[in-house]
Amino acid sequence: MDERLQKQLNFILEIDKEKNIFRQTHLSGHGRRENDAEHAWHMAVMAYLLQEYSNEPVDVARVMLMCLLHDVVEIDAGDTYAYDTDGLKTQKAREDAAKQRIYSLLPDDQKRGLMAVFDEFEADETAEAHFAHAMDNLQPLLLNNSNGGSDWADHDVTAKQVYGRQSRTEKGSAYLYKLTDNILQANIKKGALKEK
Amino acid sequence: MDERLQKQLNFILEIDKEKNIFRQTHLSGHGRRENDAEHAWHMAVMAYLLQEYSNEPVDVARVMLMCLLHDVVEIDAGDTYAYDTDGLKTQKAREDAAKQRIYSLLPDDQKRGLMAVFDEFEADETAEAHFAHAMDNLQPLLLNNSNGGSDWADHDVTAKQVYGRQSRTEKGSAYLYKLTDNILQANIKKGALKEK
Repeated sequence: MDERLQKQLNFILEIDKEKNIFRQTHLSGHGRRENDAEHAWHMAVMAYLLQEYSNEPVDVARVMLMCLLHDVVEIDAGDTYAYDTDGLKTQKAREDAAKQRIYSLLPDDQKRGLMAVFDEFEADETAEAHFAHAMDNLQPLLLNNSNGGSDWADHDVTAKQVYGRQSRTEKGSAYLYKLTDNILQANIKKGALKEK
Repeated sequence: MDERLQKQLNFILEIDKEKNIFRQTHLSGHGRRENDAEHAWHMAVMAYLLQEYSNEPVDVARVMLMCLLHDVVEIDAGDTYAYDTDGLKTQKAREDAAKQRIYSLLPDDQKRGLMAVFDEFEADETAEAHFAHAMDNLQPLLLNNSNGGSDWADHDVTAKQVYGRQSRTEKGSAYLYKLTDNILQANIKKGALKEK
């Protein structure tokens, strides 16, 4: 087998490990915790279905690719929960090292191309990155809301923290941020998300 | 919330159930069985990475969308193992009913659009469908091969059956079918896949 295909297969097999990186979000129907591959799949489908709500026109194929691969670094760096303040301090260094190792499995042109997609997501300066981040926030919110907000209660998270995180959605979609706000207000009202 | 968005959210939450549909393939590292959402995610990434090997130029965004949603019908119809001859007889009727129910959750334009993508995959007459089927075959083959072919042994599957299924890959990619053939021959040689 030629070296180029072998490198591609090495990357393909490596990212299989994303299926074993579990997040704090639970599946709908009060299911088990969700893993990174499932989260990425769901985000990519959502990006396609909800593209009409993006603030700016987007190259939806690029958004989908961004969604599919934005968590690859967690194979080495692990999942850092959105409200884990200690973990968040070291997150960037851990994820940078992982990015170098994992994308270097690929042929050089694909390494450069996919690292650029990953960096674009992280920098969050383009319409595509804004919309991918909106999906990254909205996907677990929908699951958690479907479960009565129990993921917040489990982690003693406050409305202020959730709003801090979810406010990023507004840069990608003002319309979907209105949905987010409605969901959060409803959860505050019924006591599933505490104000302080 | 407007009706259109509500319908889109209903579909998004419905397909969460794909994460609970388990296939016969095991994750690399002799892991647990893989589910439909993980399989679809892996296929979509593979389609992007391996597009250069398609026999014909493809609209890779359409291939990726096809990969992401090709198993949605299994939410109702369940996973039919590739070598389950009884299950295969009723598969089409079960999946057609599921297709109607699940895609009807969406607004009409998206229902029509995504059903067309699904039907295109099933009909397997376009370059995009050929390549998506190549991914559908290659993805579990790579995982199973990484585990020493144990999925075949578990189900008492013969080389003839596997070749029957995998031969479809050739329509999408002659190059990746050579890889498939190499993998199968190596597994026959070491006794992991029995000839008869």
